[in-house]
Amino acid sequence: MSKTSLTLDEIHALAHEAMMKNGCDEANAAALADIVMRAERDGSHSHGMFRIPGYVKALRSGKVDGKARPTVTRRTPAIIQCEGHGCFAPLAQATALPVLAEAAAEIGVAALSLTGIHHFAALWPETEYLADRGLVGIACTAYMPMVAPVGTAEKLFGTNPISFAWPRPGKTPVCYDMATASMAMGDIQIAARDGREVPLGTGLDADGNATTDPAEIAKGVLLPFGGYKGSAIALMVELLAAGLTGERFSYEAKEHDNGDGGPPRGGEMVIALSPELIAGAGWESHVDDFMDRLTSLDGVRIPGTRRHQNRLDTGPRAINAALVETIRELI
Amino acid sequence: MSKTSLTLDEIHALAHEAMMKNGCDEANAAALADIVMRAERDGSHSHGMFRIPGYVKALRSGKVDGKARPTVTRRTPAIIQCEGHGCFAPLAQATALPVLAEAAAEIGVAALSLTGIHHFAALWPETEYLADRGLVGIACTAYMPMVAPVGTAEKLFGTNPISFAWPRPGKTPVCYDMATASMAMGDIQIAARDGREVPLGTGLDADGNATTDPAEIAKGVLLPFGGYKGSAIALMVELLAAGLTGERFSYEAKEHDNGDGGPPRGGEMVIALSPELIAGAGWESHVDDFMDRLTSLDGVRIPGTRRHQNRLDTGPRAINAALVETIRELI
Repeated sequence: MSKTSLTLDEIHALAHEAMMKNGCDEANAAALADIVMRAERDGSHSHGMFRIPGYVKALRSGKVDGKARPTVTRRTPAIIQCEGHGCFAPLAQATALPVLAEAAAEIGVAALSLTGIHHFAALWPETEYLADRGLVGIACTAYMPMVAPVGTAEKLFGTNPISFAWPRPGKTPVCYDMATASMAMGDIQIAARDGREVPLGTGLDADGNATTDPAEIAKGVLLPFGGYKGSAIALMVELLAAGLTGERFSYEAKEHDNGDGGPPRGGEMVIALSPELIAGAGWESHVDDFMDRLTSLDGVRIPGTRRHQNRLDTGPRAINAALVETIRELI
Repeated sequence: MSKTSLTLDEIHALAHEAMMKNGCDEANAAALADIVMRAERDGSHSHGMFRIPGYVKALRSGKVDGKARPTVTRRTPAIIQCEGHGCFAPLAQATALPVLAEAAAEIGVAALSLTGIHHFAALWPETEYLADRGLVGIACTAYMPMVAPVGTAEKLFGTNPISFAWPRPGKTPVCYDMATASMAMGDIQIAARDGREVPLGTGLDADGNATTDPAEIAKGVLLPFGGYKGSAIALMVELLAAGLTGERFSYEAKEHDNGDGGPPRGGEMVIALSPELIAGAGWESHVDDFMDRLTSLDGVRIPGTRRHQNRLDTGPRAINAALVETIRELI
């Protein structure tokens, strides 16, 4: 696969131009370009430039309004509501997260309900934003029916990612972001192409039978990670992201989507908590002792570490040349 | 196994007497007897009378103060702190949950940090209490190191249960309560006794090798459910239950415990959210439509349903006769 070398500034500029030339105003384009650049910077390629063609499709079809201006309401001292009016999620987040962080720092816990947004990016930028301000962050969103609740053979849940971040002032926060599906459908397709088996429990074939053949799963359904326990987590995400925001469940998102390949309209729930106000003074060193013990274990992997290591490299990134070409043609 | 038939009132009375005769005052005994009776009523035998000998040990050793009176402080409009002063968890919960529910109903989200408690019961009574009042509940606690973080072969996490409940006014709430360990150690021991294999990924032998032999896992370590994703959830629980409350991490609980077999001192985090204040009017029918679709799927199991069905039976329960005899000897 041929690669093109782009600096982080060039990645940002290319994303920004692709948005501006396809109907975004400056605020929407800047928020989106920032998210794309940060994904590439951290090595999250699947959420970086790879998504730009989908963003463009959603703008061109009129599903997403690239000039929408999100409105933020602090409904109660603890509840922040952000209506995106059809914008891409990053602008809504950039607008509402400071209000959420302020509320949580003030009274210890606050929740942000995002509605009318089109989320197509990773979730760690939201929780990491909170962790960088000394707050615990939990975020989740639902996304198109692709996963069968355990025991069934029918798609109902989205890939339903959940992100969690724990603040470590002066250190790398603990931060993860993971689908509650066993595997991304893209990875299933790659395994099928490469002729590799996938673990039992990853998905079912079109007749609802368990299989390790990724080609059969691609015709059937994905399963949640971790059997019935993972399915319970996926259900929680669906209820928090749609039931609690009042926005569309995964199945509703699909029913209303125009199928242009871009992100459907949906909701997102973000919860922020203050260890300073809840645990009180001393919480940092208490958690440091635990983290020291955790990181001392042979073979342990702390979520978020690799992304933060990638970030230290401020040099150019090697991007799929065909993708860059595709994006340039969209400008 | 010989069984004794006891009415729910008799179960309550027996638990109450066992507590009173071993150093509890009326408030502590009543809260504990209520939790034990509700567990047996709902068919959660592992969290019912089965726990009484452990409760008695903890009272007799002086680890738990059966006369402790929890103190509740509303630190901010959204943060409730309950210090148990060494009581059993049920009294602290009975004291603080009404304050949490009131706060969440008032401003949409609130968090309860429980410290200085000894938790040995299920977590669903906490979240179900909230769901019964129209609130979403999330609860978690850490509990003695028994689980190796994924990639390692050393116990650091507790069995770290998490409970989630979604309110359905006039209907059975969605409510689950599950360890983030792959399996309870008790079930490993039963599988070993019965000569049954357990799934790969359940645990490791004493040398850190993956095995399906439960007898080898009993000498080694449990793993989190669901591989690295489940391990990330277990880590979140550990950080919320100990890092965010300021109470002991699982490894600290063990270091300080007197090993009497009763519950160690620990913390618990409970978060309550109001769909009425966050999603607004219409949230119930929106979620009902989703739940109708979910329950229409062949083979689906809605968490909490079986427990609520058991509850409809108000008749006597068949309790292990040897256990009843053991409890009577403790009185």
